[in-house]
Amino acid sequence: MPRYRLTLEYDGGAYNGFQVQAGQPTVQGAVETAITAFCGQTIRLAAAGRTDTGVHATGQVVTFDLDKAWPAATVMNALNAHLVQEAVAVLDCIEVDPEFHARFSATGRRYLYRILNRPGRPALDQGRIWHIRQPMDEAAMHRAAQALVGLHDFTTFRDVNCQSKSPVKTLDIASVTRVGEEVHLVFAARSFLHRQVRSMTGTLAQVGLGRWQVSDVARVLAARDRAACGPVAPSDGLYLTGVDYD
Amino acid sequence: MPRYRLTLEYDGGAYNGFQVQAGQPTVQGAVETAITAFCGQTIRLAAAGRTDTGVHATGQVVTFDLDKAWPAATVMNALNAHLVQEAVAVLDCIEVDPEFHARFSATGRRYLYRILNRPGRPALDQGRIWHIRQPMDEAAMHRAAQALVGLHDFTTFRDVNCQSKSPVKTLDIASVTRVGEEVHLVFAARSFLHRQVRSMTGTLAQVGLGRWQVSDVARVLAARDRAACGPVAPSDGLYLTGVDYD
Repeated sequence: MPRYRLTLEYDGGAYNGFQVQAGQPTVQGAVETAITAFCGQTIRLAAAGRTDTGVHATGQVVTFDLDKAWPAATVMNALNAHLVQEAVAVLDCIEVDPEFHARFSATGRRYLYRILNRPGRPALDQGRIWHIRQPMDEAAMHRAAQALVGLHDFTTFRDVNCQSKSPVKTLDIASVTRVGEEVHLVFAARSFLHRQVRSMTGTLAQVGLGRWQVSDVARVLAARDRAACGPVAPSDGLYLTGVDYD
Repeated sequence: MPRYRLTLEYDGGAYNGFQVQAGQPTVQGAVETAITAFCGQTIRLAAAGRTDTGVHATGQVVTFDLDKAWPAATVMNALNAHLVQEAVAVLDCIEVDPEFHARFSATGRRYLYRILNRPGRPALDQGRIWHIRQPMDEAAMHRAAQALVGLHDFTTFRDVNCQSKSPVKTLDIASVTRVGEEVHLVFAARSFLHRQVRSMTGTLAQVGLGRWQVSDVARVLAARDRAACGPVAPSDGLYLTGVDYD
């Protein structure tokens, strides 16, 4: 029974999150429906990350098994044809070892958070970026972000509904740079807590706006208290950009 | 009577072109309606470029007169508030000399054409980019594009409905570069013929795909024959990015 691995791009604004829910449009539902339309099988996808409502992906990874060994290019083209009315596209399809699992084999996840930092609101990227009018100091945000890198108890940056067993995680990369009118925050870790990226981004935005000092980020991390977190950034600007495997 | 100059960003996919038409959603209609909602005046915008249906802008420029001298920041914020349900945003507003005219004072227009050159179709940029699956040779496209730079009779690259008096124009810049998975074509000129950018892009795409030789572009330009043009590129990938004034 061959196993396939897909790389997906999607506009999270069109779905009630990744995970399938009865009666709601979801990314998982759209892809599973396309697979059934292609080959008649009813399957359940495994995914590297279960993105929230409104969160986008340019590099989500999913795996599933088919009864018949189709060429990977056939699977990709057929699924894209069945997804043409959806805001999901298959960017890549390969056949993988039956031991390979999109979620459990992953050794790293990467996220990008985009802030549009200009006076005028977005027309082209409405729903795909967080608009902040006041000028931000991205260098101060980057300095502050370095306090988050490494092994920490991230309770401050964890949603109350997070189901992870432990709040202790290792953040490998936290980088803040300006790209024209945008401020880009890039985070990489083996895994993240629920809403951790949006919680860290919202906190760093306070520093960028001069409301908090650079040193405040280390202080709120050390507090290990959800109430110490800055306002959580909206889903609009968040993208799952890639998943690493050995 | 103060004159104002706005810089506009818009998603052309939401409108039947820039120019106002009874009973159709247009960019001009949306902005004129917002101005009336703000101050009660009925005005007619002058615009640097009348973009076609589906063509986007990140730097369209328009001018108009108001009876009362409002601060420019007030005009910008009020129009953005009235445009919040539209796919148009005001990026900048300044008061200008009453002699200044968005169209007649312009000394240059700049366009970007975006091609997504990868196997997988776009999910996030659907309607905002031209998808070409087969690998393109952007270096060959750039070399071919240089034949278009300078003073030429652009009849080959002119739509049959073009109302310009003369097909002779000077193209200042034609540049083709790869930006990750995208191929970007940048064109700059004092003015362009109707559909000239999309006609040149479609022709250069033939070179990028290896169907035409680099030298074919100079040949079809010299033919001064609309029938010699390559297939016109779709509106999706085209952006009016800026207008120059002395």
